[in-house]
Amino acid sequence: MRFCSECGASVERKIPAGDTHERYVCTQCGAIHYTNPKIVAGTLPIWGNQVLLCQRAIEPRKGFWTLPAGFLENGETILEGAIRETREEAEAEVLDPHLYTIFSLPHISQVYVFFRGDLAERKFSGGTESLDVALYNESEIPWENLAFPVVAQTLQHFFRDRVTGDYPVHNEVIEFKQRLRS
Amino acid sequence: MRFCSECGASVERKIPAGDTHERYVCTQCGAIHYTNPKIVAGTLPIWGNQVLLCQRAIEPRKGFWTLPAGFLENGETILEGAIRETREEAEAEVLDPHLYTIFSLPHISQVYVFFRGDLAERKFSGGTESLDVALYNESEIPWENLAFPVVAQTLQHFFRDRVTGDYPVHNEVIEFKQRLRS
Repeated sequence: MRFCSECGASVERKIPAGDTHERYVCTQCGAIHYTNPKIVAGTLPIWGNQVLLCQRAIEPRKGFWTLPAGFLENGETILEGAIRETREEAEAEVLDPHLYTIFSLPHISQVYVFFRGDLAERKFSGGTESLDVALYNESEIPWENLAFPVVAQTLQHFFRDRVTGDYPVHNEVIEFKQRLRS
Repeated sequence: MRFCSECGASVERKIPAGDTHERYVCTQCGAIHYTNPKIVAGTLPIWGNQVLLCQRAIEPRKGFWTLPAGFLENGETILEGAIRETREEAEAEVLDPHLYTIFSLPHISQVYVFFRGDLAERKFSGGTESLDVALYNESEIPWENLAFPVVAQTLQHFFRDRVTGDYPVHNEVIEFKQRLRS
């Protein structure tokens, strides 16, 4: 950020009066510009013993496999965002989604939220947003080719939890050092 | 938003190529400026049969009672933000906080996340951020003077859940019509 989005003058970094953090503050009109973590919402779609994964068509991690997910938009609930992203990236519908995993990624100021739910029918497609969409058994998961740690950890929780049928909500932190090898 | 924060030229509202939503787009450099929902993180501090509430020192809802909570900062985990806000607004420490309630408020593009946990000791204070901080029994909760619906619903869940001692994570949506009377 170099210019004030309110008046077009230049901004500087400083701690406003009464605040505890440095912000972008306008040198002319004094407007304070806050930046905050973003939410990424997605689903873990399930079909019998299989889970649905999407092969990413864009960077970062193009060609790697992921769960359908994307940035939450203004005006959406977390679940609405997760359902929309599942339609956009997999052209799939998930029935009765339940909150399942939440990850804070402080090094990139993101919070991921995944809902798990059964596919409404065995129908999905890459469309334009994914190179491929496919169902995987646990033994077939391409662990070395998953796009992000949040995907690996959500899958690991699922395969562990389904043994007992008890699916608590998992709230976790992913630190930079845990990033997958590319 | 009226000016591009990258180059200072004017922005317009339009749907970028390949996108589905209107964005602020720079008329000169073409930068796309996304705006996304913000996360508010807080705690439900517990002391025996009582819960801690803070009386707001600032608008909106100045003078009304709330749980300690505030905007998550870049570089923080949700829990770190909740702990920081509890220190800032109540000068209190919560032991072993557990994820408890999540609320989507699509009309204001916010997501609230509360953690519940016992106070480390019977020590708290308003400092500069709260007019007052106090412990309340269930029968004493100032229901008519709570600041926000997310506070009322978190308290209602807690008083219901503590009967059984089972505290599932509650994920809910708060629509505009549910706003408390001021």
